[in-house]
Amino acid sequence: MATSEPRAAGGEQDPNSANLRPPTTRFLQKNNSLEEKGRLAGQKNLLSCDNSDRDARFRRTETDFSNLFARDLLPAKNGEEPTMQFLLEVVDILTNYVKKTFDRSTKVLDFHHPHQLLEGIEGFNLELSDQPESLEQILVDCRDTLKYGVRTGHPRFFNQLSSGLDIIGLAGEWLTSTANTNMFTYEIAPVFVLMEQLTLKKMREMIGWPNGEGDGLFSPGGAISNMYSVMIARYKYFPEVKTKGMSAAPRLVLFTSEHSHYSIKKAGAALGFGTDNVILLSTDERGRVIPADLEAKILDAKQKVRVFFPFYFFNIIASPCTFISNHISFHLSWVLHLQGYVPLFVNATAGSTVYGAFDPINEIADICEKYNLWLHVDGAWGGGLLMSRKHRHKLNGIERANSVTWNPHKMMGVPLQCSAILVREKGILAGCNSMCAGYLFQPDKQYDVTYDTGDKAIQCGRHVDIFKFWLMWKAKGTTGFEQHIDKCLDLSQYLYNKIKNREGYEMVFDGVPQHTNVCFWYIPPSLRGMPDGDERREKLHRVAPKIKAMMMESGTTMVGYQPQGNKVNFFRMVVSNPSVTQSDIDFLIDEIERLAHDL
Amino acid sequence: MATSEPRAAGGEQDPNSANLRPPTTRFLQKNNSLEEKGRLAGQKNLLSCDNSDRDARFRRTETDFSNLFARDLLPAKNGEEPTMQFLLEVVDILTNYVKKTFDRSTKVLDFHHPHQLLEGIEGFNLELSDQPESLEQILVDCRDTLKYGVRTGHPRFFNQLSSGLDIIGLAGEWLTSTANTNMFTYEIAPVFVLMEQLTLKKMREMIGWPNGEGDGLFSPGGAISNMYSVMIARYKYFPEVKTKGMSAAPRLVLFTSEHSHYSIKKAGAALGFGTDNVILLSTDERGRVIPADLEAKILDAKQKVRVFFPFYFFNIIASPCTFISNHISFHLSWVLHLQGYVPLFVNATAGSTVYGAFDPINEIADICEKYNLWLHVDGAWGGGLLMSRKHRHKLNGIERANSVTWNPHKMMGVPLQCSAILVREKGILAGCNSMCAGYLFQPDKQYDVTYDTGDKAIQCGRHVDIFKFWLMWKAKGTTGFEQHIDKCLDLSQYLYNKIKNREGYEMVFDGVPQHTNVCFWYIPPSLRGMPDGDERREKLHRVAPKIKAMMMESGTTMVGYQPQGNKVNFFRMVVSNPSVTQSDIDFLIDEIERLAHDL
Repeated sequence: MATSEPRAAGGEQDPNSANLRPPTTRFLQKNNSLEEKGRLAGQKNLLSCDNSDRDARFRRTETDFSNLFARDLLPAKNGEEPTMQFLLEVVDILTNYVKKTFDRSTKVLDFHHPHQLLEGIEGFNLELSDQPESLEQILVDCRDTLKYGVRTGHPRFFNQLSSGLDIIGLAGEWLTSTANTNMFTYEIAPVFVLMEQLTLKKMREMIGWPNGEGDGLFSPGGAISNMYSVMIARYKYFPEVKTKGMSAAPRLVLFTSEHSHYSIKKAGAALGFGTDNVILLSTDERGRVIPADLEAKILDAKQKVRVFFPFYFFNIIASPCTFISNHISFHLSWVLHLQGYVPLFVNATAGSTVYGAFDPINEIADICEKYNLWLHVDGAWGGGLLMSRKHRHKLNGIERANSVTWNPHKMMGVPLQCSAILVREKGILAGCNSMCAGYLFQPDKQYDVTYDTGDKAIQCGRHVDIFKFWLMWKAKGTTGFEQHIDKCLDLSQYLYNKIKNREGYEMVFDGVPQHTNVCFWYIPPSLRGMPDGDERREKLHRVAPKIKAMMMESGTTMVGYQPQGNKVNFFRMVVSNPSVTQSDIDFLIDEIERLAHDL
Repeated sequence: MATSEPRAAGGEQDPNSANLRPPTTRFLQKNNSLEEKGRLAGQKNLLSCDNSDRDARFRRTETDFSNLFARDLLPAKNGEEPTMQFLLEVVDILTNYVKKTFDRSTKVLDFHHPHQLLEGIEGFNLELSDQPESLEQILVDCRDTLKYGVRTGHPRFFNQLSSGLDIIGLAGEWLTSTANTNMFTYEIAPVFVLMEQLTLKKMREMIGWPNGEGDGLFSPGGAISNMYSVMIARYKYFPEVKTKGMSAAPRLVLFTSEHSHYSIKKAGAALGFGTDNVILLSTDERGRVIPADLEAKILDAKQKVRVFFPFYFFNIIASPCTFISNHISFHLSWVLHLQGYVPLFVNATAGSTVYGAFDPINEIADICEKYNLWLHVDGAWGGGLLMSRKHRHKLNGIERANSVTWNPHKMMGVPLQCSAILVREKGILAGCNSMCAGYLFQPDKQYDVTYDTGDKAIQCGRHVDIFKFWLMWKAKGTTGFEQHIDKCLDLSQYLYNKIKNREGYEMVFDGVPQHTNVCFWYIPPSLRGMPDGDERREKLHRVAPKIKAMMMESGTTMVGYQPQGNKVNFFRMVVSNPSVTQSDIDFLIDEIERLAHDL
């Protein structure tokens, strides 16, 4: 066995002198004896503090951080103790924050305007400098960062589709950060890559694709997941676009609801379709796509022939030469066929952003089958309902989709970010995106390289978004997610029942909400007698922003508002945080009435 | 002042009964009195453990997690104590892992094949189930996840451009996870949005743009940052593509080095240019673009006219009717002008992935100016050298770029992910990507909404990648990053000097490396006498994969290999982790020789 001692490393920081050398170079040597011992010992003692060595090592001690700097932490010589003390001090700040997040006697936020924070409130200086700050200052900066932020996990934060602070998910993120690796190869993320694969399969099973077959990836958010769906649809029907560009395809058209997320239009712009070629579909009063409108617009697009060449009419009309004219007509009609509009892709939304509407997937799927179009279901917000036996019927037909976006970071309370793009056809993601970079995806590795995921993605490096979700699923079980979802939907129904006939409230649409979205106007006393008309509309339009500003400034709660179509600003209440109780819903209503009383 | 008590919430989990109500609804009420008290107390006692209340609360106690489940944690009634104990137990696992990461007596990895991990090694079961697992099992899962992963922070992990485990950055990520918010609006990420703005300005100053003016975003990785650069270049020259699609533009051509990162081609495919229209530039023996080749290929593209219409020749040749023919020719030439190739964008790489080459930016910028092309600098890997007075000259000319990619998660050791796209022209990012979604980017908010960033991005939700970087910059100062970078470059020069004339080594290119990339073949004794030729090449091609497999299976170190052009598999050594010492470089060389001795 070859051995070597570490060479002298003059003037360098104290490297550990031990060199691990296995006794033989066996293939598949399973156990790292040092680690293995630690692990077994750890398992035995994992749940107690009687491992005196470990306990002693990580007990917080009084440490003066004012004379310590980043350079004193690991890998510095003798850096272990300050490193552990610093990390434990940070954890103390974080656990205090976690505790307060769940405490209704704390504010949701401590609002300041940008210029105020930039000026440096109470010494909180955001500017960067050439010289290092002490660890004491770094700890103060951590506290201040949290202090002036927004407690998105607070039970009275209703502002976003993502809310709550799941403790298991949080622990998962802390571990992910510590592992600090990258999803692109099995080589450097073996466990995470497998977790992703198994979790995506489970999600595909819940969608209803046979045996959970198919493909998928976690991507940095629902907008990117939706962008993937458009890319792979294009690749499926016009694979030559990958090499030749959009000019190799006819004019392609995408269809999506006027209530759908703007990311479909954004994908249309980015991928070279153009937003004009993203056709918006009309919806019913609840914000659901009207299938007949989809079919009409498909037919309309197919019939529409874009006159691309200014000489076309000129030739047809002016040509005195029949022979040439006929030939030109023949060829031009071929060209024009290419230049016509070709319907490619339909997005059905399962849980729209504002109304929480579920498009009728089965009826849309019938139309997609009839016209041979790609069906994508954007379940970024509503996908979570697949976990609930009570509510999953709202996504009936999703098993007929070619691709699905589903963000566990929304309705399922997984920490940000966690968004999946799921694809029914295996191999198409890689076909669409692979570039076969030799330095990452070597075909001659010793393991089964089909587990490498990087060539399926539009990213190169890809953050580990899976672990927190996997760990939450382990810890809660499918049934835990189901309870979470059912509870949130019950709460929104509670809100709906509470305000639907209450004085001063008008619902934006009638009927029990499909998702947790409850959309309503609060009508302050001064507007209640006013006849409908422009003046009332203008005044009402200003009510929600004013209430919202007061909410933020008093820091008691947060809820979103927006206009939609011809409807002036209204509140969109959503619940995705299982910490919320009926009393928090009551609080919101009381707070709106308190703040808006004199408007 | 209106008050209200919480309503009865029958059958629900114990909400905290306290309702925070400010005494008045003042605008800009700055201080949350409860929090403020805590903060001041915290500041006083921050750095000691004499705050007995806090210390008692968070002291680890013996907790039996085998009968506890996720549902027993917050927001459960009496959930605070188990929550804190669980989080502290997780932190214990993580701090142990951190400690071992820096310990050279531990392995870099404990390799297993996918099928082995899937079968469930030693009870590590990756499958998800309907029923919850106990917190004890969750803790074991956390340990196992780390055990079977790869220690990317280990001083002998050289496999990726991103390596190391920065303690401040790690603390920053833990805080980011705990804050669990989203970068799209100032409303819910006020501090992080401002940190991003200030940090991007600082980065633009280092690039050399006047007063650090311009724009930018942190994006999910260098590939997406590069994609942004192509999108905004297209928008700058052909803004109508956003609405009309690629058919509104002529055939656009992108130029990038044959050694550049594959993400430029990937962007070409995704955005509808087509990979055929991504022209690869020849490089010198060091992997740097040859400017003359760029100019030749620009001219070539401009002269190339793509004959798109089959009837073109037909008409010109066959038309017996001069009048018509002339008109057709006139119009066709106009159409053909539109359909010709138009050079749009040049990517210059600052630090190529394999060779670490820096393209000559100034010479490329001259050509871009001459032909009015967008110049992007992909400094994902090399951008960090801007922090070093000794090495920043390698990026001379970067101030002439229109856009720059710079990944602090690579050379600057920031935890994954942290990648910036920086743009010289203000407003163009928003122009390119804005969709003005009313429910997020309300123009009638009470604060200055120009601070909202979401409409600049192709994402909707965007992970907080800034905080860890900002915190590291605070803690290390610019000078700390400079030392980090200079040290890593010194180490690669040490390696180069050590092996350039050593028996059994051949350098892939001559001369001192520009970046930390050192590319070499190890020639096992059995190949040393063999004459150059196909047989030797084939055998040599198999050497690096074999050594790499043995490294991974013994777990002692990891380094990347790949072929490049006509060069068979060679090792690419990189150093970005400041924990590395000369002894680790020595170890790598010894290890290669030990493992490859009998090949």
